[in-house]
Amino acid sequence: MILQYEGTRYQGWQKQTATANTIQGRLEELLSKMTGEQIKLNGSGRTDAGVHAEHQVANFCTKSTMTTEEMFSYINRYLPLDIRVISMDEADLRFHSRLHAKEKVYLYRIHNDKVADVFTRRYTYQYENPLDIKAMEQAAELLCGTHDFKAFCTNKRLKKSTVRTVFYISIEKKDREIRITYHANGFLYHMVRIMTGTLIEVGNGSRTPESIPQLFNSKDREKAGMLVPGQGLTLLDVRYES
Amino acid sequence: MILQYEGTRYQGWQKQTATANTIQGRLEELLSKMTGEQIKLNGSGRTDAGVHAEHQVANFCTKSTMTTEEMFSYINRYLPLDIRVISMDEADLRFHSRLHAKEKVYLYRIHNDKVADVFTRRYTYQYENPLDIKAMEQAAELLCGTHDFKAFCTNKRLKKSTVRTVFYISIEKKDREIRITYHANGFLYHMVRIMTGTLIEVGNGSRTPESIPQLFNSKDREKAGMLVPGQGLTLLDVRYES
Repeated sequence: MILQYEGTRYQGWQKQTATANTIQGRLEELLSKMTGEQIKLNGSGRTDAGVHAEHQVANFCTKSTMTTEEMFSYINRYLPLDIRVISMDEADLRFHSRLHAKEKVYLYRIHNDKVADVFTRRYTYQYENPLDIKAMEQAAELLCGTHDFKAFCTNKRLKKSTVRTVFYISIEKKDREIRITYHANGFLYHMVRIMTGTLIEVGNGSRTPESIPQLFNSKDREKAGMLVPGQGLTLLDVRYES
Repeated sequence: MILQYEGTRYQGWQKQTATANTIQGRLEELLSKMTGEQIKLNGSGRTDAGVHAEHQVANFCTKSTMTTEEMFSYINRYLPLDIRVISMDEADLRFHSRLHAKEKVYLYRIHNDKVADVFTRRYTYQYENPLDIKAMEQAAELLCGTHDFKAFCTNKRLKKSTVRTVFYISIEKKDREIRITYHANGFLYHMVRIMTGTLIEVGNGSRTPESIPQLFNSKDREKAGMLVPGQGLTLLDVRYES
């Protein structure tokens, strides 16, 4: 299934305690009720509290005889208006939305003005000071490639590899908004938000583009930029081989 | 002052009873508190309940010695987040935001899909059935020009002229959304919403583009299309001579 959600009201994707309001929790509850089975939903990745998705992919296994069209109608009828299923199809039994993802695309939206925007306020991070887009673009280019992004993540499990490949980063300014789009084969915990914080610090002059390569070598979270708020972040796309 | 607001929570622009939640009411209350005077705010036009504004113009008279910068900061500090003052300047004493407006631009957004959109749901009207954009464009062209738009308004005061000039109407389809933009020297009560309802009825085949000119002659509200919901409507711009 392809999902869209506004993260404002949720404590993120991942199911937590029974009382936590999470996207996965809401969906699993509904799917279990629909099928009469205990459904476990695999998301392509966990979005943090307040983070949105234009295109999240998730899959589950069921013995239900309902068609995907029937499930699609049922789910959208009972889901709250800030979560929608955009489409739903049968997948190969071996398909796993996280393990088989080849590329993910995230968008970070900065509302760069002293006056907030009424219409985009839920989806942007308001940053008042002027930002040097040229310098940010230089720094963004240095973030691309295959690197150890340890300095750009909040540690959770130390055992796993922190090497990722960032394919490209684009920065666009339109009116009062700056949109930074990240394409990578995967992202570590908080990685997009720390990269964005680092780019903002380049943009406001408190660090140089040339200082970026040292961050990879340092592997030190403290040396990278601030963690910007989740509400500016949107999962735009998840891509698979075929 | 140039204002932006999300109309969702409000009973429209115009101040009503003391308990009604209106944009004008909220602003007059705040401006009166700020200046210590009884402020009367002139808007360029009254937006209906649920209607939004990207760019509304309003003016007021005061003897206050505060600078416009001080007022700007004060107002944005105390306004709710769904109303913002974008800019504020001193105007000629004779300036009146409604009487001197030469052109107004309204946008109507139709989410044309069976699944609602999580991010635009507050600013669009969801219409499921397919619409023939070409036919709608033909009908839109016939709506342009100087006409008696009596059939396209809900009667309020019968004395005033119902002749208006529609400069042009553009219709764009992007992904699942149809955006209809109306430029005119002014609009009657409900006029944009009834024109949009009429265009939708052309798009779904229940009336032809050729039937439009007869509506002007009929001057009969019952013969024109449905009144579409206010939440799809946004005041985009108000233009003045200089």
